[in-house]
Amino acid sequence: MSDTKVYLLDGGSLMIDGYHAFWNRGPAGEFRFPCYAVLVEHKDGRYVYDTGFDYDHVMRVLPFEKPSQTREQTIPGALAQIGLKPSDIDYVINSHYHFDHCGGNKHCTTACTICHARELEVAFNCQPFEHLGYSDLTFAPDRARNAGKTLPSEPALDMYTPKFETLTGDQEIAKGLWLYETPGHTAGHYSMMVELKGRRPMLFTGDACYSKKNLDMNCISSFHLDPVASLKSMHRLTELAAKHDAEIFYSHDPESWPTYNRAPGYYA
Amino acid sequence: MSDTKVYLLDGGSLMIDGYHAFWNRGPAGEFRFPCYAVLVEHKDGRYVYDTGFDYDHVMRVLPFEKPSQTREQTIPGALAQIGLKPSDIDYVINSHYHFDHCGGNKHCTTACTICHARELEVAFNCQPFEHLGYSDLTFAPDRARNAGKTLPSEPALDMYTPKFETLTGDQEIAKGLWLYETPGHTAGHYSMMVELKGRRPMLFTGDACYSKKNLDMNCISSFHLDPVASLKSMHRLTELAAKHDAEIFYSHDPESWPTYNRAPGYYA
Repeated sequence: MSDTKVYLLDGGSLMIDGYHAFWNRGPAGEFRFPCYAVLVEHKDGRYVYDTGFDYDHVMRVLPFEKPSQTREQTIPGALAQIGLKPSDIDYVINSHYHFDHCGGNKHCTTACTICHARELEVAFNCQPFEHLGYSDLTFAPDRARNAGKTLPSEPALDMYTPKFETLTGDQEIAKGLWLYETPGHTAGHYSMMVELKGRRPMLFTGDACYSKKNLDMNCISSFHLDPVASLKSMHRLTELAAKHDAEIFYSHDPESWPTYNRAPGYYA
Repeated sequence: MSDTKVYLLDGGSLMIDGYHAFWNRGPAGEFRFPCYAVLVEHKDGRYVYDTGFDYDHVMRVLPFEKPSQTREQTIPGALAQIGLKPSDIDYVINSHYHFDHCGGNKHCTTACTICHARELEVAFNCQPFEHLGYSDLTFAPDRARNAGKTLPSEPALDMYTPKFETLTGDQEIAKGLWLYETPGHTAGHYSMMVELKGRRPMLFTGDACYSKKNLDMNCISSFHLDPVASLKSMHRLTELAAKHDAEIFYSHDPESWPTYNRAPGYYA
């Protein structure tokens, strides 16, 4: 492969209350936000950072989040639009294991899965207030079964036994591909920065910051494990962006998302 | 004075969203809840645990909480109904320094103020997401001014320089009058248990648990510093109640409140 390319794969959208998007602040009311995966074509392989939500899972467990997702907005569907299939993916990187970031993992059956060591631990042993967040455990069917969790009866899941590569600390996992620890939203959260030849680095917040408005308001989201750490991580993203002259790409920003260059377009 | 008596002094009510009362759970919508002070008449003196909110403060800073409070629901008004005045109060105990628990402190000009040492520190140096909680600093005008905070221009505040007695750990501050550390909602939160001659001990949760429904749902409130600690403290209340065969009195429970024996009635 040649120079690194980054594709943003549209994954559809979900709805939460404004009080969840902007903790203790709001305003109340329906807040519909995009979910997307980031495909990094790198000379060392193809990496996907987060894999969005599984429509059937959301309809079964959290239908109140009113999922919207076409077939083209699933991982297989989105990859197909740029001539790829899930088996072309070498690595899945998960920022964290909330259902809207790992729902498509199970399609990437041949990929190695990369995540924070702490995150993989807590996903199967979370706080009571995190149960809905960690409700889709199909990213690791064997571990879920070992932890006594129930999985949907999908034959495909019996075939899916991903290999994990767990990390701690900041890591350059491939040349110019950085993972930065940004805990608080969850115990082991990674944001990702990608250096490109022809433009500023791209800094993907993951859920350490849903949107530009969160950053501007200095306001974290409601779904968190540790609000103090969460706020620190949001500040860390600002510092990282400044230090590396990186452009910030937010995870769930209905205002920024339409301005992003989405697949089949790409950044390089 | 004779045997200990406990009066519940109605302090009016406020309104928050259901997503704040029941964090990450809801349902959404207006949740109106009572605020009250607890007067303990003890042979060692008169103690007031929490002093409710100041109507003018809420209207100025958080009018969206739609305060409802008659003159009889202020500290002076409520005390008058049982033949007392604020200067009869020897000790004000604050569970914590959120505005709806210390708004009436300033009326008790001759009382010594008891609180957790950590709470007094953080009230003037809180997290960004706690600013509204700690917005009424009239409980310590001199400390507020020293911290560079603006106070409303009320001449009475110039005259109010309360003495503080700060504590850490669980403490029996007078015979049968216990303070238990229950952090999480804030950094230094105290719940209170009062032993009485003629009935089961009364365990006042403070904001370590707003309501029976929070306890039953194992669901904390949105306004917190540390949700994991908060959940632990809620469990601690259950354990304390079991250990001491105490009856739990919730801080903001619209369903339990009407069943409580309110002043001029009392518990003894």
